[in-house]
Amino acid sequence: MLDRVRALGFDVFGTCVDWRSGVSRAAAAFLRQIGGPDISPEALADAWRGRYQPAMEACRSGRRPYTRLSMLNRELLEEVLHELGLDPSAMPVGALDELNLAWERLDPWQDVVAGLSRLKRRFIIVPLSNANFAMSLNMARRAGLPWDAIMGAELTHAYKPQAHAYLGTADLLGLAPAELGLVAAHNADLAAARHFGLATLFVPRPGEHGPHKAADVTPAQEWDLIAPDFNGLADALGC
Amino acid sequence: MLDRVRALGFDVFGTCVDWRSGVSRAAAAFLRQIGGPDISPEALADAWRGRYQPAMEACRSGRRPYTRLSMLNRELLEEVLHELGLDPSAMPVGALDELNLAWERLDPWQDVVAGLSRLKRRFIIVPLSNANFAMSLNMARRAGLPWDAIMGAELTHAYKPQAHAYLGTADLLGLAPAELGLVAAHNADLAAARHFGLATLFVPRPGEHGPHKAADVTPAQEWDLIAPDFNGLADALGC
Repeated sequence: MLDRVRALGFDVFGTCVDWRSGVSRAAAAFLRQIGGPDISPEALADAWRGRYQPAMEACRSGRRPYTRLSMLNRELLEEVLHELGLDPSAMPVGALDELNLAWERLDPWQDVVAGLSRLKRRFIIVPLSNANFAMSLNMARRAGLPWDAIMGAELTHAYKPQAHAYLGTADLLGLAPAELGLVAAHNADLAAARHFGLATLFVPRPGEHGPHKAADVTPAQEWDLIAPDFNGLADALGC
Repeated sequence: MLDRVRALGFDVFGTCVDWRSGVSRAAAAFLRQIGGPDISPEALADAWRGRYQPAMEACRSGRRPYTRLSMLNRELLEEVLHELGLDPSAMPVGALDELNLAWERLDPWQDVVAGLSRLKRRFIIVPLSNANFAMSLNMARRAGLPWDAIMGAELTHAYKPQAHAYLGTADLLGLAPAELGLVAAHNADLAAARHFGLATLFVPRPGEHGPHKAADVTPAQEWDLIAPDFNGLADALGC
């Protein structure tokens, strides 16, 4: 299966970058700014991320047209603040907008930049993320992610695990589905990619949800490749 | 005007890469392969390029839906061979397909890679080209063009100088039109970009059409910046 692969598409949130630490860091600064309510920054980050799939589902189901993740996140932030007993309408809009930018100011796991740089020698490497175009681009410039191109939901107007998120990406690359591999830390994403004919590469990220991560610690299927991190991917693929 | 610019979009054919030399090189190999008819490779390259604007105009006018430039070029190649007295139906399809790939195997002008690398420190740099996505991506990997992202006609489904080619690019970047600058060697492209609110940066490429280039040797308007090459751009912009 991997012999045909010419491009690797990477899940980003959790697979390439540590969203929980980054969002918690920004949340801590925000909570200080608004007067220090007794709320843990990690709880805010987790609650925010918890609303991510339902928000995208509104677009997937057709109840709502494709909407950029940055805009969904901005809406979800107000919901989360309400849930935590805070009133976003009493807060400076600029502070909310600034906190929303946390999603493009995330740090990569320590192996990512080196691993991607090695993989790029042999493969086209792109984000295959639900992030919108500018979010992925700004994140890449800040974090030094050496993508060949920015791809993902905004180019296909489809959110994973919709078919077109995977197949539309292969089509833009001028490749057959089997010539594109998905690298992800999430079994459900890989299962969809396999269903639509892509190659599948699993890299577990045990720290994604903090110390108590329960899901995706082990592969749920015999993925085409399983590696401990991106340097391990590069080793296995001869890069 | 330039103070607001955060991203630079580059015309590619002629501005970044020497299409005439590259296509002529591939045409020479093709002509040898098919038995060496008495046709100059440069004449084939010029005739092929000569059909580029009319082919895109069919898409711009709505007579035809957006069609990838690689597909338009492949059709135009058969027309050009007929025009030159050759019968493409008598030739191996693989040889025609291989020749068509010449458009992604073009060499950059000598200042381009160094200049782009400097400009990238301060600006988001992207191709703003009529090339389709895979063509721009494959060209960038071969030529070492250090783009932050691949953009252009296929992402906006619009061919320059249509409004959406410029405005849709700014929108994907999350920028206002005035925060995007177009770098081009062609006055008509810059005139459209200015009309739609972009900043305009002119770099003449006197060798684009070979020794007898007549158009675009001098700026037709007072563009926001005029520089002799990409290192000159970087100098002027403090990169």
